[in-house]
Amino acid sequence: MTLDDMVKRHGSWLEAGIDEGPVISSRIRLARNVEEYCFPGWASEEENQAVWTETSEIFHSLEQPFLSWNMHDTDTLDKEILFERHLISQELAQQDDSCGVFVTRDECLSIMVNEEDHIRIQSLQPGLNLQGAWAAADKIDDELESKLTYAFSPKLGYLTSCPSNVGTGMRASVMLHLPALVLMEEMDPVINGISKIGLAVRGMWGEGTEAAGNMFQVSNQITLGRREDEIISHLEQIVLELIEHENNARIRLMNERSIVVEDHVSRAFGLLSNAKLMTSGEALNLLSTLRLGLDLGMLTQFSRRELDMMFISIQPAHLQKLETKGLEPEERDVVRARKLRDFMENATDSNGKN
Amino acid sequence: MTLDDMVKRHGSWLEAGIDEGPVISSRIRLARNVEEYCFPGWASEEENQAVWTETSEIFHSLEQPFLSWNMHDTDTLDKEILFERHLISQELAQQDDSCGVFVTRDECLSIMVNEEDHIRIQSLQPGLNLQGAWAAADKIDDELESKLTYAFSPKLGYLTSCPSNVGTGMRASVMLHLPALVLMEEMDPVINGISKIGLAVRGMWGEGTEAAGNMFQVSNQITLGRREDEIISHLEQIVLELIEHENNARIRLMNERSIVVEDHVSRAFGLLSNAKLMTSGEALNLLSTLRLGLDLGMLTQFSRRELDMMFISIQPAHLQKLETKGLEPEERDVVRARKLRDFMENATDSNGKN
Repeated sequence: MTLDDMVKRHGSWLEAGIDEGPVISSRIRLARNVEEYCFPGWASEEENQAVWTETSEIFHSLEQPFLSWNMHDTDTLDKEILFERHLISQELAQQDDSCGVFVTRDECLSIMVNEEDHIRIQSLQPGLNLQGAWAAADKIDDELESKLTYAFSPKLGYLTSCPSNVGTGMRASVMLHLPALVLMEEMDPVINGISKIGLAVRGMWGEGTEAAGNMFQVSNQITLGRREDEIISHLEQIVLELIEHENNARIRLMNERSIVVEDHVSRAFGLLSNAKLMTSGEALNLLSTLRLGLDLGMLTQFSRRELDMMFISIQPAHLQKLETKGLEPEERDVVRARKLRDFMENATDSNGKN
Repeated sequence: MTLDDMVKRHGSWLEAGIDEGPVISSRIRLARNVEEYCFPGWASEEENQAVWTETSEIFHSLEQPFLSWNMHDTDTLDKEILFERHLISQELAQQDDSCGVFVTRDECLSIMVNEEDHIRIQSLQPGLNLQGAWAAADKIDDELESKLTYAFSPKLGYLTSCPSNVGTGMRASVMLHLPALVLMEEMDPVINGISKIGLAVRGMWGEGTEAAGNMFQVSNQITLGRREDEIISHLEQIVLELIEHENNARIRLMNERSIVVEDHVSRAFGLLSNAKLMTSGEALNLLSTLRLGLDLGMLTQFSRRELDMMFISIQPAHLQKLETKGLEPEERDVVRARKLRDFMENATDSNGKN
């Protein structure tokens, strides 16, 4: 399977059902390093090459098949695709030699090699399923550990390139869609409250990205001095509270301002169905509103999965891959608008008029 | 005929054809006063009453039938309707005793009594037709003058309450729809240029109103020391230049940014067809964009007259009259959005999909 095939569908981790409400997906990330080599930033080219070769051999020997991309042989567009699909970080996309990523066909597991650490395991699951994501991450972690000696301190735990990851090396996060909290202007206090209890709130594509489309990633900050299950259950508890907050905000919105929500949803419908130019930022926000309308039962003609897939497939690299050519920004806005109109029309056709 | 009947249709002065391009209508206003009485602001109640009685008798004696509203007997909503239809000024709507308006059935002539002057003749014509508007104003002016003695100075001309109207007492104006100049951000220099040659640019409802919906009224400022035909031909010449400017801007828009215009028009279509809440300001701007799309041949399913009528019938008082009840602002936004959706749907139904 190639990226050309992949861009036509979504990763299994996007398959959350409508009953999941505001939750999109759960993610566990583990940072690991091989004891005998320097961390990637300090290592010689030979050391990095050795890590790449050793890990490649391991992945090819595993029973579960992995797709792999060596960044050196991957062109810019394909790197962007991998980034837009949450399979690699922006940082890895900018690197070149002796680094890459191993991905399962369902895209639920992706392991970056020689990013900030030698090994970065990412495990994604649809909906709120940190336990499931942790189990899968833990399993591949054990397989790798059976063939590599990890840098580990009995006192500190796993050693990592950045001190903020030392200990468990784990970052657990949940992607949430919180449009009602945003509409009710209650998101800022929520973010402040979460920061105070050692969690971070970030945008859709992680650190440094904006919360486009009312999508928020909530994750633990602390990796040291706590067990993995403690970190997970703490995050889970906070996420459940956030879901309750969002659901309450939705109920209040519908009780107090249902016509405003209906107007929002209808306008998003009208714009997505008619615009001839659309930036990805606007598209994300309109899709977010459509998704809210779907959750609230105001729209029925959309499949939640198809809608969630649109959040990714309207991104610049996906658009260019689907068009099989490079596009200037304004051309992308034209193609994106056309793709969205097609999506809206097909949805309308198959299930009756809005 | 009553206002309830009138609100269901438009005045004949709105019947400009599509070939008129950016021109909506032409207007001539004449300010006149009766010699034997003080100007309305200085007159006693008895004097004002005498003017009202005398003019009423004249209008009832004329061959052409006039509808009349005495402001004292006209409720606030009806006054608003008359204002929204450009038949009375905001100032007259706020007055009460011994004043009112006489209107022909086609709404092309309206004569306010005891506004700022004893008599304010307004003559409206569709498209660019200042000569036609002047001829009609001149005719009714002659009829009134045959029965009243106007305050007139052989040296200055007609005497008026405000010195700015002394002389001809005439204000000639043309209502223009200039969306391309606005989109190309060329309207400000145009307004500056026009001001320097003694003309004024105002919004859709005259002095002090904003240029909602890209509608602009261009009028003469000078009334003294020039003959009526000079004022009219000067204004006409400037309006022809403005039309050329606007048409050039439309050509450049279509050459350089046709996708942007198409996007604008399609979005207006999408929002008007789907929104559940809409303020009159937003509605005017979207209708303006639709009108541009019609002029440019991007849309074909609308009648220009019906579209121009919408500019007036979505105004607050018209909405309330059509709903036959008072409405709070948010209720008006709901009713306005519904009225616009109906308009869009009917337009689409009768002529095929957008």
